[in-house]
Amino acid sequence: MNYGRSHWLKSATAQKFSIVVIGAGFGGLQAAKSLARSGKDVLLIDRNNYHTFVPLLYQVATAQIEPELIAYPVRTILRRRYGHFLMAEVEQIDFSERVIRTDRLDIQYNYLVVATGSQTQYLGVAGAAEFALPLRTLEEAVTLRDRIFACFEAASRLEPEHRQHLLTFAIVGGGATGVEIVGAFVELLRSRIRREYPSLNWREVKLSLLQASDRLLTELPAKLGLAAQKYLQKLGVDVRLETRVKQISDTEVYLSDGQKISTATVIWVAGLEAAIPDLSEELLKSSKGKLLVRPTLQSLTYPNVYAIGDAAYVEQANKPLSGVAPEALQQGVTVAQNITRQLRGQEPKPFRYFNKGRLAIIGCYSGVGLIGKWKVTGFLAWIMWLGVHLVYLPGLRNRLVVLLCWLQTYLLRDRPVRLIMSPRRLLATEVISKYLGRK
Amino acid sequence: MNYGRSHWLKSATAQKFSIVVIGAGFGGLQAAKSLARSGKDVLLIDRNNYHTFVPLLYQVATAQIEPELIAYPVRTILRRRYGHFLMAEVEQIDFSERVIRTDRLDIQYNYLVVATGSQTQYLGVAGAAEFALPLRTLEEAVTLRDRIFACFEAASRLEPEHRQHLLTFAIVGGGATGVEIVGAFVELLRSRIRREYPSLNWREVKLSLLQASDRLLTELPAKLGLAAQKYLQKLGVDVRLETRVKQISDTEVYLSDGQKISTATVIWVAGLEAAIPDLSEELLKSSKGKLLVRPTLQSLTYPNVYAIGDAAYVEQANKPLSGVAPEALQQGVTVAQNITRQLRGQEPKPFRYFNKGRLAIIGCYSGVGLIGKWKVTGFLAWIMWLGVHLVYLPGLRNRLVVLLCWLQTYLLRDRPVRLIMSPRRLLATEVISKYLGRK
Repeated sequence: MNYGRSHWLKSATAQKFSIVVIGAGFGGLQAAKSLARSGKDVLLIDRNNYHTFVPLLYQVATAQIEPELIAYPVRTILRRRYGHFLMAEVEQIDFSERVIRTDRLDIQYNYLVVATGSQTQYLGVAGAAEFALPLRTLEEAVTLRDRIFACFEAASRLEPEHRQHLLTFAIVGGGATGVEIVGAFVELLRSRIRREYPSLNWREVKLSLLQASDRLLTELPAKLGLAAQKYLQKLGVDVRLETRVKQISDTEVYLSDGQKISTATVIWVAGLEAAIPDLSEELLKSSKGKLLVRPTLQSLTYPNVYAIGDAAYVEQANKPLSGVAPEALQQGVTVAQNITRQLRGQEPKPFRYFNKGRLAIIGCYSGVGLIGKWKVTGFLAWIMWLGVHLVYLPGLRNRLVVLLCWLQTYLLRDRPVRLIMSPRRLLATEVISKYLGRK
Repeated sequence: MNYGRSHWLKSATAQKFSIVVIGAGFGGLQAAKSLARSGKDVLLIDRNNYHTFVPLLYQVATAQIEPELIAYPVRTILRRRYGHFLMAEVEQIDFSERVIRTDRLDIQYNYLVVATGSQTQYLGVAGAAEFALPLRTLEEAVTLRDRIFACFEAASRLEPEHRQHLLTFAIVGGGATGVEIVGAFVELLRSRIRREYPSLNWREVKLSLLQASDRLLTELPAKLGLAAQKYLQKLGVDVRLETRVKQISDTEVYLSDGQKISTATVIWVAGLEAAIPDLSEELLKSSKGKLLVRPTLQSLTYPNVYAIGDAAYVEQANKPLSGVAPEALQQGVTVAQNITRQLRGQEPKPFRYFNKGRLAIIGCYSGVGLIGKWKVTGFLAWIMWLGVHLVYLPGLRNRLVVLLCWLQTYLLRDRPVRLIMSPRRLLATEVISKYLGRK
């Protein structure tokens, strides 16, 4: 729309910034912060005006915390520094012209950091994009929460023989997110909501965790995956290993072993791929669409372009990084240092990841983790997980309120946010509608 | 859809409840609670699974508090009592058959309480329903918040001569809600967000409060309306009395005096009417569609049907009630007592409203109120307003967190929830899109 665009432009050409960062995830935000702190003018672009603290999405989906608590305004993080912000959707990057085309205006850059993160990948499974619920954005977390409670509401008014379908939940993907959401889901079922649906028999709720590989948590040592599996099975979760999903319909999940699960709700936390905007030319990419970069995180072709986080393929000790927040955060710092070096005429330095460890939480009072070579399980891993995430969560008030939520969740076994807030039309699948009634 | 409906029914007829309450607002929830507490089986029906604490909606719209804090799960309030809950949309009430038809199933009743509340009424103003933003539900409050911040985001990248349109906000209606949202809006403009938009000149933001009558807060004594008006004018609000809105377009508000205001955002808090479902026969109604009732709150035609809150027209001392929460709460108690009396074979008693007073808050550190014959203004009215609303807000944790929000808002002049969470397509009007760019 040319009329509107003309208002934006200071001149006939695009607005110009020395350094532009695309994406306000862990990596991009850290890069922009570090650059702004050292007095560089930097423009951060994101489609949302907030940073999403992704590790707690599963807690939003299971009614533990309010979605706003893990969304922090980008402008607040950047304020009083040299950081600028543009809320826009990036449509194309033109490397030869050094221009980013967004849905709002065009931006020219000298240095560019691509930190666009990842998106859900359905691995070619038929029906997955249409019927499965992903858990990658705040909106998706709220939709999932609302769907779970909509199923409870609908089932509570049905004759027993028709309830099972609504009370079966299939979770596809046995990585950290899959394990965490299943654990939190079990705790939800054991919370005070039990008393709130007098006509529901909670034993009817069935959770199936479907994992393609032969163990859970493949990023961690086999022993820890096994510990998680045993714990989840003790909680009553139907854990199925070496099970691939062949097809998803609005009523069933069809598995590779010929079996099927009859369910209205399939949660998809199985695959991720890099979310790269349209590029003016093909850059070399790895299997999951990640941009190949030099050890300095610079693009192979353009030394003034960097890629970090889930948008980049980076190896350390001949193994690819696993895509967790600390990697992106450290890459953000390195990129800021390297651009600063380039501006001074120095050579960028290679990125080195310092692995502080990995943790996964499994429901209430339990977790697994690897700190150096030290394997932690049970309560200790659980409390460490909570502590680490509380420290990294942005915003003092958010931290305080999340702590309150956790006290309520874990000590009182309550779930504070059991609300259905999505518009009805977004919630009801064909199947749920069929059970729910006329609409 | 007959297939689905058949699962619901215990028999060939509808499910039967002795007492049914429609609407989980202040009146309906109180009626259901009182009935359940005295051991009566009661079914409460609402389209949402939560009660909305309406008096704080304007704080959600101005980024002071999270929307979830003023939404409390109905089932939690009813649990372990005799209260049942059905999340459904009521489509029709058939008085002769004593049946409520919902989008989920049909319910038969012996006693019915209609507590369906009110909805926005656009008073026949052309374009209002299409272009103005109401503030009656939680969803509307979030949409308004998101719109305000979307305007800031868009304006921050525009040349000065094009910004004014996005930075002008017209508020239609000078009752308590209008005064409260304008006051909170001014405080928002003075909060820490000032520093977050370096390219915006906050002096350009213009707030116009349009009131049809010759003073603000017509429910309160003239002196208090004048106090509110002076305070708002001191804050820089353009207060226009005796000003009716003739028409609203996507770019302008046309006024009765021939003037127009060029704005992208019109907030409509001018009119309300009763939200009565489709009825099997016409009942007598007052001007705003409220059901006429006997002094006992019983329907004129059906002694087993009650109407309360904004759904009913009730007079006290020859003056109609004004539609505030305490009236509905007290009516809820009376209705519960009257149904109990009827069940015992006694005569229902007339409703008597005990007026504890009225308060309105005007931005930070100021308010007006009438307690008995005692007029309060300024800081005292402000702190009383906060105290009263904190006490009445359901949920201990919600109260604690709202208190935290208020400390942050009023002491630190911060606005914790300055997020844009609505999907982009819901936010952008034609006009905003035009300025925002391509999409």
